[in-house]
Amino acid sequence: METTQIRLAAYPVGVPADSDFETVTTTLPEPADGQVLLRTIHASLDPYMRGRMSTAKSYAEPLAIGDVVLGGTVCEVVESRSERRSVGDVVLAFTGWQTHAVVDARQTKLVDTSSAPTSTALGVLGMPGFTAYAGLLEIGRPEPGETVVVAAAAGPVGSAVGQVARLKGARAVGVAGGAEKCRLLVEEFGFDAAVDHRSETFVDDLAAATPDGIDVYFENVGGHVTEAVTRRLNRYARVPVCGLIADYNATSTPEGPDRLPGFMRRVLTLSLTVRGFIQDEFTASHGEAFARDMGAWVADGSVRYLEDVTDGLENAVEAFRGLLDGRNVGKALVRVGPDPS
Amino acid sequence: METTQIRLAAYPVGVPADSDFETVTTTLPEPADGQVLLRTIHASLDPYMRGRMSTAKSYAEPLAIGDVVLGGTVCEVVESRSERRSVGDVVLAFTGWQTHAVVDARQTKLVDTSSAPTSTALGVLGMPGFTAYAGLLEIGRPEPGETVVVAAAAGPVGSAVGQVARLKGARAVGVAGGAEKCRLLVEEFGFDAAVDHRSETFVDDLAAATPDGIDVYFENVGGHVTEAVTRRLNRYARVPVCGLIADYNATSTPEGPDRLPGFMRRVLTLSLTVRGFIQDEFTASHGEAFARDMGAWVADGSVRYLEDVTDGLENAVEAFRGLLDGRNVGKALVRVGPDPS
Repeated sequence: METTQIRLAAYPVGVPADSDFETVTTTLPEPADGQVLLRTIHASLDPYMRGRMSTAKSYAEPLAIGDVVLGGTVCEVVESRSERRSVGDVVLAFTGWQTHAVVDARQTKLVDTSSAPTSTALGVLGMPGFTAYAGLLEIGRPEPGETVVVAAAAGPVGSAVGQVARLKGARAVGVAGGAEKCRLLVEEFGFDAAVDHRSETFVDDLAAATPDGIDVYFENVGGHVTEAVTRRLNRYARVPVCGLIADYNATSTPEGPDRLPGFMRRVLTLSLTVRGFIQDEFTASHGEAFARDMGAWVADGSVRYLEDVTDGLENAVEAFRGLLDGRNVGKALVRVGPDPS
Repeated sequence: METTQIRLAAYPVGVPADSDFETVTTTLPEPADGQVLLRTIHASLDPYMRGRMSTAKSYAEPLAIGDVVLGGTVCEVVESRSERRSVGDVVLAFTGWQTHAVVDARQTKLVDTSSAPTSTALGVLGMPGFTAYAGLLEIGRPEPGETVVVAAAAGPVGSAVGQVARLKGARAVGVAGGAEKCRLLVEEFGFDAAVDHRSETFVDDLAAATPDGIDVYFENVGGHVTEAVTRRLNRYARVPVCGLIADYNATSTPEGPDRLPGFMRRVLTLSLTVRGFIQDEFTASHGEAFARDMGAWVADGSVRYLEDVTDGLENAVEAFRGLLDGRNVGKALVRVGPDPS
């Protein structure tokens, strides 16, 4: 079986260029005992993938030059040499940007095709949804009546954060880029208010949308949004930090003034809690509750989601640039092949 | 009864100047029912007092121009119109920089004069000791074998942090300014290692003293020490933030580069917990345990302390400048009057 792969050809400097990748078609080995041959249906595009294309110190090893670009996938099993999986099963895997792959069956997870579209295993019912759920509930700990602010709010993490915050009785304020996304936040996702960070009146708009200050800021963008939000944090506010997409393409230390001393002074005088996290550290403690809660919320419509689907693996790089630039609305996916479910 | 007071005459810009204060002798009212007349024995000098001399937003209201400079004191009751206190009692109060004061008896706390010198009620057995104890154990949560770093380590908070960390089985590394303080850390307080932040080889020395990285950084100074420590933090490290003395006299936003994005990136990729706190938020939860534990540790010599005593209220301003400049060794106190105990 042949597979077409997109491999890393060079570490991008700043915005990833087409020339940082190469497309290669190669022949896969036959599956060995315990292995399965997978055909990719959906490939996930997530901000963290930019970090793996860099040798800067991070929570995971970077890709090597020549590696297939990694990432979560939903695949169909087309050949199985494992009792764990049957031909036709739809599974969650981590096979990245390629049309087919051979992996150990243990590295796949069965996707329930009966209750929700298979793509949700990469979105609201998958890693982004879990990031929102665990970060908000374990670190953010919103109390009824408190104000929760999340940026990139039209994305898969942000939209889930706002909706779960509301289910817990908090006021949800979303920050997004552009009037259309802001409209979606209120009309589609039920946020109490939405603020356009591209507007010249952003700082004032944020103040108007958070009259009682901010108790939880779910940090997933960085940049000027963080700056404005930080100035409105209340005493004992919690700041789960799960991403800094605004800075991911940065190539040098930003110019001054140096905002770190002022930030630390706020941490001190407001007794703030700032806590970085990677969702997998909470899998053991919160995984089951997430599957139960979020599954029920999606099924009964109390948590909604949007997807931003790009057709064709050959368009993955451009779609990934769009994600880093905030052009997607909802969970960014590449449809690599037909969905049999 | 007359009292001599040092009052705030102007908000200091940068380092407090003599002209920012004025000394006034005034007549106190007679104590009313429920009140006591106090004679000051020791006045405490603490870094947080600099924050009260500024109108910048903080966790407490600033002093008004004309107010007596505030602060903890140990006093003798010289007249009592309350059943709670008798003449001759030694009490903890918050009467600041003055020789005498009239306060409600309820605003005083009896000091046990039998087990330790009365001055320790302002140091190892008082607010600084409790800051160390609660911040380290509640936020830092050192595990046996982990590495705890504390700056201003020869001060009353830092020296307690290091000693309590060792009692919990952690490795304690102290940062202080100058060879003499570093010698004290190891020889007097039993730190595993000490690093001089004024040395040109500070960054390398810190690395050598923390071969396994840093799991807890008890932040009480800010500045270049924080910068160096941050680069050695391990995954899941905890950073209790209780002070930023290096920046307290700052008068403008520091020049670039802007270190905030890099700091937040570390928070994210290392799953750091950064938590500001003011010790009084933990009084209800940890106050009793502190009194029991620290009292026993001081009594049996497993926690030691040093005091840096300046004689005479008239020298308080200069002693306070010394504190902000790190010239004190141990808990900074002004001896205002004789100790009867």
